[in-house]
Amino acid sequence: MYLRPFPTPANGPDCPALLSDRFKTVYYDTGTHEVVLLDRRKYPFQTVFERYGTVEGVAVAVEEMVVQGGPPLAYAAGLGLALAAQLEAAAQRLLHTRPTADDLHHLIPLALQAALSAAPGGRAAAALTLVNSEIQRGNDVSQRCGWYAAQLLRDGDRVLTHCIAGAALCWMLWYARLDGKRIRLFASETRPYFQGARLTAQSCVEMGIDCTLITDGMSAHLMSQGRLDKFICAADRLTLDGHITNKVGTLQHAIAANYFGLPFYVLGYDGPDPHSPMAANIVIEERDPKDIFEARGREGVVRTAVEGISGAYPAFDITPPHLIAAIVTDRGIFPPTLLQSYFQSPIA
Amino acid sequence: MYLRPFPTPANGPDCPALLSDRFKTVYYDTGTHEVVLLDRRKYPFQTVFERYGTVEGVAVAVEEMVVQGGPPLAYAAGLGLALAAQLEAAAQRLLHTRPTADDLHHLIPLALQAALSAAPGGRAAAALTLVNSEIQRGNDVSQRCGWYAAQLLRDGDRVLTHCIAGAALCWMLWYARLDGKRIRLFASETRPYFQGARLTAQSCVEMGIDCTLITDGMSAHLMSQGRLDKFICAADRLTLDGHITNKVGTLQHAIAANYFGLPFYVLGYDGPDPHSPMAANIVIEERDPKDIFEARGREGVVRTAVEGISGAYPAFDITPPHLIAAIVTDRGIFPPTLLQSYFQSPIA
Repeated sequence: MYLRPFPTPANGPDCPALLSDRFKTVYYDTGTHEVVLLDRRKYPFQTVFERYGTVEGVAVAVEEMVVQGGPPLAYAAGLGLALAAQLEAAAQRLLHTRPTADDLHHLIPLALQAALSAAPGGRAAAALTLVNSEIQRGNDVSQRCGWYAAQLLRDGDRVLTHCIAGAALCWMLWYARLDGKRIRLFASETRPYFQGARLTAQSCVEMGIDCTLITDGMSAHLMSQGRLDKFICAADRLTLDGHITNKVGTLQHAIAANYFGLPFYVLGYDGPDPHSPMAANIVIEERDPKDIFEARGREGVVRTAVEGISGAYPAFDITPPHLIAAIVTDRGIFPPTLLQSYFQSPIA
Repeated sequence: MYLRPFPTPANGPDCPALLSDRFKTVYYDTGTHEVVLLDRRKYPFQTVFERYGTVEGVAVAVEEMVVQGGPPLAYAAGLGLALAAQLEAAAQRLLHTRPTADDLHHLIPLALQAALSAAPGGRAAAALTLVNSEIQRGNDVSQRCGWYAAQLLRDGDRVLTHCIAGAALCWMLWYARLDGKRIRLFASETRPYFQGARLTAQSCVEMGIDCTLITDGMSAHLMSQGRLDKFICAADRLTLDGHITNKVGTLQHAIAANYFGLPFYVLGYDGPDPHSPMAANIVIEERDPKDIFEARGREGVVRTAVEGISGAYPAFDITPPHLIAAIVTDRGIFPPTLLQSYFQSPIA
């Protein structure tokens, strides 16, 4: 575990808007009692906020990828629960939207418990209070995780990342810059949704970080030519024995990094899932393969595949601990096989 | 080397149109003296044949990927030479279109030599005769290579392929079917040009072969779940010491196959390049990264990346011999480190 203590949070007006509280993508409108979500399928080409007044509306928004990424989709589902009167049924509907997502399966039972413990008239308020405090806690976790991750970077590093690694990646890049380290990010575009080409790339643009886009099949070649130094991404779930699941494509990058001797660091936010002892506990979501047949861009959707074929769309893959150099959390940096000690570690 | 002799060619009317002489995608129109090329960027969504009356037109068509794939682009360039009066300059212009392509660098000097050996009035005809005989030879090579490759398949095999492996892949699937083997092909879509989603998938549709499309980042995951048995693709160049270069993404699939213990077979057509002793002899083409920022589909081109970032587009990668189980040629099946013996091997 890495012990240098976390400094005073730096969330002042000098921070990029992206890292400040000024840009909310998931929140509850207490005036209209609606859940408001940035449509992450269209962002940043269009900045569209959708509003949902029903549990079913929120659940479909999660299933159809309006909101993506472990914590944001869990927050959206939690806020959906705050909308609900029929609480148990609502919780089940929301839990079934994305089977692999760890944050979702952590947050919904907590919100349900909070609502059911309150008096009948105060249940929505109780769920809302819990989810809003989780959003605040998530921001703190991201900032601490990013700060620890920045300690692993050297000036001049060329860092591969995959999909969108969330706020911790942005904080990592921000703290590295505060320490005078120049980092160049290589974002794999992440088919089929292009989260790397849109969300990760846009974060870099807003923060002024050098970003080079590649396709998902190029990382091994760049490693073979000595053009990458590290691979860093997030995880949708960490098991107690140090396996991670993340957006499909991660395992391929990790195997290639291992083959070429480059370290793979995982941004593990608030640590492993206490209910997932091993990889067998992870359910891999298989999504409708229609997304494999098309590409969504600024001008709309185009069909990229011929008709008359099948498709497979496993949304995640699992990387074993021996391919991971370290897992970075809000409590420090852990070897993957010692990740269970996270729960005994103090928050610095 | 695999010794079972090649059978009588099966190119009769019972063959799919794809494998017959009826579907020509690269030819010389002796009536108009134009080179005619199927636009492979649009096929199969649109079947557009472009006609070129000048060397510059043919060269730009090769550079802009109207024609792709080692042999077809070499044939197009060779036919371009047949158009030319200023032969040496034309050869240089055509050679510089695609630096990595082996067939191109083999064919153009031969066509130039044939033209220069002829009387001034017969030069175009001499170049044309040579290129047309190379096209005929290429068909025979593909058929033999595909037949040997089919011997490596077992009934029920689930075969990963990348990009478009050309006619030998189609012949392999065809001969496997004649032997009663049911093969399921998994095509990685092959960003940025989607050759897997369009060309490989369309070949399967036309031949009635079961084809499942995946994105370029999914192969390792499918291997980890026991959902693939073999990886088979072609190569743009083979070195005498058994390295292969092929469309970028191949190395990642090969490393993953090695990690999970699956064999990687290369369709090596007419063997190694005698002028490339080792990997250092291969020039990797770096293309304009604009293609990484967009996706071309049936309805046109959409921008998939944000503005304000860089991109890298190495078009090929190099896979070393220890990741390759065998290289299949028109003369049999070779261990990669013994590929030099190709030249001493008889054509069965």
